[in-house]
Amino acid sequence: MAEYMESLRVLAERFGRLEGVGKKTAMRMAFSVLELEDEEAQDFANAILAAKASIHLCPVCQNLTDREICSVCADETRDRSLVCVVTDARTALAMERVREFRGTYHVLHGVISPMNGITPEQLKIKELLARVGEGEISEVIVATNPTVEGEATAMYLSKLLRPLGVHVTRLAYGVPVGADLEYADEITLFRALEGRREL
Amino acid sequence: MAEYMESLRVLAERFGRLEGVGKKTAMRMAFSVLELEDEEAQDFANAILAAKASIHLCPVCQNLTDREICSVCADETRDRSLVCVVTDARTALAMERVREFRGTYHVLHGVISPMNGITPEQLKIKELLARVGEGEISEVIVATNPTVEGEATAMYLSKLLRPLGVHVTRLAYGVPVGADLEYADEITLFRALEGRREL
Repeated sequence: MAEYMESLRVLAERFGRLEGVGKKTAMRMAFSVLELEDEEAQDFANAILAAKASIHLCPVCQNLTDREICSVCADETRDRSLVCVVTDARTALAMERVREFRGTYHVLHGVISPMNGITPEQLKIKELLARVGEGEISEVIVATNPTVEGEATAMYLSKLLRPLGVHVTRLAYGVPVGADLEYADEITLFRALEGRREL
Repeated sequence: MAEYMESLRVLAERFGRLEGVGKKTAMRMAFSVLELEDEEAQDFANAILAAKASIHLCPVCQNLTDREICSVCADETRDRSLVCVVTDARTALAMERVREFRGTYHVLHGVISPMNGITPEQLKIKELLARVGEGEISEVIVATNPTVEGEATAMYLSKLLRPLGVHVTRLAYGVPVGADLEYADEITLFRALEGRREL
C-alpha cells in the first residue's frame, strides 16, 4: 500500500478527467467507489454507458437531448423567431428554469478562447449561421457569460450576425437580485448605473 | 430539456452516492461524462468495474489491497509487534508517506458514531482483538482523528485492548508544523502546552 493499487490509480485518473475534479477529489471518489456494493458499482458503470449512448446533440439547436429533436425545438408553441445563444447545455437549463423565455436556443459548446486553443471553428457557430440564414429568425439574444471570453465571443457573433439582418441583443448587466451593494464590484456597479431604468 | 434527460439524471444520482459529492457537483460531473469520447466513457465504466473486482480487504489488517495479502503485511521487514489502528485506507496511505513507521496497520473502516448508526460491531474491531489475541503484538497505536467520534472510538478500543496486556498509545496532539500560533484554536494550544517537551 506504499503506492496506490494500480486499478485504483486508473479509476482516480478517470475521475480526474471530469470537469472541475482535482487530483485529491478524484482519489477520494475512487476510494468511495470501493465502498459501493458490487451491484451499485455495476449500475454506476452502466449509467455512464447509458447516458453516453442515449444522449446526443439536437440537430437543430445543438443542445443535448435523448430524443431525435430536443423538447424545446420540437415544441410547436415556442417562438422560432427568437434564439437565445448559450455556451453550454447547463446554461440552457438555467434559462428554462426561469420559465419566461418562450424562444428557442442555440448551444455553442464553449467560448472562443485562444489561451485554451479554442477557435470559432470548434464551436457550433456555422450551425447558428445556417439557422439564421434560413430567414425565420428575427432576434438572437447572446447569453454568454459576462467574462472576457464570453464578451469576446458575443462580439464575434454580433459581427457575423448583424449583416444577416437580425437583431443581436445581450442580457442586461446589473446588480444581482438580493445582492448587497456594498460588496458589488466597481464594474458591475458601473454597468448597473449605466443601465439604470425609470422607476 | 425543461427537465433533465432521464439517463443524465440517473448518472448524476450515481455520482451523488460517492462520498463528499453534492447534488450540483454530481450533475456537473454527469454533464462532463457526455463530453468524453465514446472510448473514454467505456474506459471509465471499465475502470469502475476493474477497481471493484480487483481490490478487496487484506485478511490480516483489513486494509485495501489488490493482492492476496497487502504489501505491508507481506513485507517481512515490517515490525509485527507494532500495529497502527487507522479509520480508513487513506489514513494508512498518509502514514506510509511519512516513511518512518515500520510497524503494520489495522483498518477499522469507520469510527463509532451512534448519530450515524455506526456501532462497534460494524467496524473491524473483532478482527483487531483476534490479532492481538495471537500474542505477537506488544503495542497498538490508535491513530483515529482528533474529533469527538475519533476520541470516543480510541477510548473504546483502549478499554478492550488494555486487559489483553498490550500497550495502547495515541498520536501526539499539538500545533501542526508550519502553523501560525495566532490562528491555532484554544484546545489545540492547550494540548500543545500540556504535551510540551524539553528543548
